[in-house]
Amino acid sequence: MSNTSLKDVIEACDRAITQEDYATLMEYYADDATLVVKPGMLVSGKEAIRKAFIAIADYFQHRLVVTQGRMEIIEGGDNALVIMETRLDIPQADGGTTQVTRRATYVFSRQSGRWLCTVDNSYGTDLLDCAED
Amino acid sequence: MSNTSLKDVIEACDRAITQEDYATLMEYYADDATLVVKPGMLVSGKEAIRKAFIAIADYFQHRLVVTQGRMEIIEGGDNALVIMETRLDIPQADGGTTQVTRRATYVFSRQSGRWLCTVDNSYGTDLLDCAED
Repeated sequence: MSNTSLKDVIEACDRAITQEDYATLMEYYADDATLVVKPGMLVSGKEAIRKAFIAIADYFQHRLVVTQGRMEIIEGGDNALVIMETRLDIPQADGGTTQVTRRATYVFSRQSGRWLCTVDNSYGTDLLDCAED
Repeated sequence: MSNTSLKDVIEACDRAITQEDYATLMEYYADDATLVVKPGMLVSGKEAIRKAFIAIADYFQHRLVVTQGRMEIIEGGDNALVIMETRLDIPQADGGTTQVTRRATYVFSRQSGRWLCTVDNSYGTDLLDCAED
């Protein structure tokens, strides 16, 4: 099992987001990966994902901190489904922060021995709350 | 977008489960796919998955009916993350049925133009309720 190395990748991604190091972050995405920016808004491709992360950092006044809570990794067929508590420390107008915990779902694909993110959906199954019947 | 054909695949899978047609069902799984039988119990490979479905059908006295509710499909990098309400009509001792709705997460991989399931996790993010800290 290579769960340890995939965990390392996920931690490196969250560190890169917090540090706004998008060049490093994009090394962990597949060329045609898809990011759920928010329910109903998807972007695909590294350049669009990079721009979305920059917009998110701007929105949170460059004070967003991302850390991991509990994590489950299920590997199958050169893919991995990652189910994870993602904790966001979100800046507030009064200078303090509020912590929000999401249950995220990420898909990774093993390509030439490396794990690359193909689908980044930090909203997990809560997406269904916004889906039309 | 080929969402329609992936939807067709998912509907064909649920129909095959209800009809206990495991030969057809296994055509939609990658050779080394992983099924979450229940939290903490994973099986990998078509033969192990087929046996797990047979055991599940036995457990539910061959009266389990699986249908889909709301569904979101997010494609990226030749993968698709499917987030779906899975409705299970579960037989009860009194001859009636109880309906349980799960929010499931499935990963599919596009291989030679066909969608194959690589990770089948009908428990979705609820898996974290059973994870150790």
